[in-house]
Amino acid sequence: ALLEAIRAQFLPKYLDSLNGKRVLITAGPTFEAIDAVRGLTNRSSGKMGLAMAQAALDAGAQVTLICGPICLPCPPVDKQVNVSSAEEMFAAVKNEIANNDIFISVAAVADYRPAETYPHKLKKEAEVLTLTLVPNPDILRYVASLPHAPFCVGFAAETEQIEQYAESKRRDKKLPLIVANDARSAIGSDDNALILIDDDGIHPLSTAAKTVQAARVMAHIAELYARYP
Amino acid sequence: ALLEAIRAQFLPKYLDSLNGKRVLITAGPTFEAIDAVRGLTNRSSGKMGLAMAQAALDAGAQVTLICGPICLPCPPVDKQVNVSSAEEMFAAVKNEIANNDIFISVAAVADYRPAETYPHKLKKEAEVLTLTLVPNPDILRYVASLPHAPFCVGFAAETEQIEQYAESKRRDKKLPLIVANDARSAIGSDDNALILIDDDGIHPLSTAAKTVQAARVMAHIAELYARYP
Repeated sequence: ALLEAIRAQFLPKYLDSLNGKRVLITAGPTFEAIDAVRGLTNRSSGKMGLAMAQAALDAGAQVTLICGPICLPCPPVDKQVNVSSAEEMFAAVKNEIANNDIFISVAAVADYRPAETYPHKLKKEAEVLTLTLVPNPDILRYVASLPHAPFCVGFAAETEQIEQYAESKRRDKKLPLIVANDARSAIGSDDNALILIDDDGIHPLSTAAKTVQAARVMAHIAELYARYP
Repeated sequence: ALLEAIRAQFLPKYLDSLNGKRVLITAGPTFEAIDAVRGLTNRSSGKMGLAMAQAALDAGAQVTLICGPICLPCPPVDKQVNVSSAEEMFAAVKNEIANNDIFISVAAVADYRPAETYPHKLKKEAEVLTLTLVPNPDILRYVASLPHAPFCVGFAAETEQIEQYAESKRRDKKLPLIVANDARSAIGSDDNALILIDDDGIHPLSTAAKTVQAARVMAHIAELYARYP
């Protein structure tokens, strides 16, 4: 209730700012199966992605949420697609992206997956196992390079040289905005500190509840989007 | 409420059957960190382990629950220890095992972990990555081979030759009882089918809610334990 009250404080800034716009958001981790039981994943509670979805709803947008395996209740978005692997998330994004005005990639997509996936459970045998990993599709890069790309926002969880790595990702993928954070303090937590990086420079957002940060980020997105070519 | 009613039906069989006994239970998956963000894990909701903990409480036992990363509320056990990796779970089991009468290993412990763990987030660079994995400690084998080992119960999630693999695990680890199931239909589900295997042979438990199955399994454990040397 307190968080709701705090969030409401930020509402006036961006309420209705995305009225009638369509926003596609990815959230949560992905799970890359090794066999019927084992898999690779990322630490991600999905909290920030869900908070962004709620903030987009608060801004008046029509929201589609593509969600990896999380265990939190999702906000009442217009459409929700649940996926498991990065390839499934990529397929869902390709399926949903048309006619969206804004794409916000919050999901912690696994960047590698096992080269082979086994349908049964592998027996424990070898003393040392070697797992060969191949790169997953870069979903955000794909969307940002579409002929009629929506306004694309990336999230970068880093543990060192946070601003530098995030800015180089932003330039590399040609994003108008990237939201950087320190993975070590943010993962699973209810609050985080963020750094917004756009063509105007760096805008730090000091530590606050993820619901508050999402409202701040969404206000910034709406502002940038309004003057986007 | 319906499940509770169904579960209550099975209560008379084993209510108070473990009065004053101490039961240690492991539940959930483990998470084996690759770096600050990535990791290896098993598909496991923790539902069966939590149901077993509740059933042990219903049987009158004093219950310690050692739990990997799950997102379900835990029953009101006497002591709960939350862990992440298999090595942490092993340390917690070693710490708690003394004076326990029964050890029930329900956790889906990752049997391999990355040979190296990186404290920062690895940058995505190589086209193909090779991950070297080394075996994790076998917690159940360790407990079952203690000089004054408690009554040990294993759980075996298999996808093929279920009975054969489970029975060979049981003999190999010298367990009085193993509970086998089909990983493909059981994982994440609210119900499952089980096969109990002990020195008397095979006892199949047809599909039912995990809470019901846990009561059935606990009744069987109490019965075997009562005539355990």
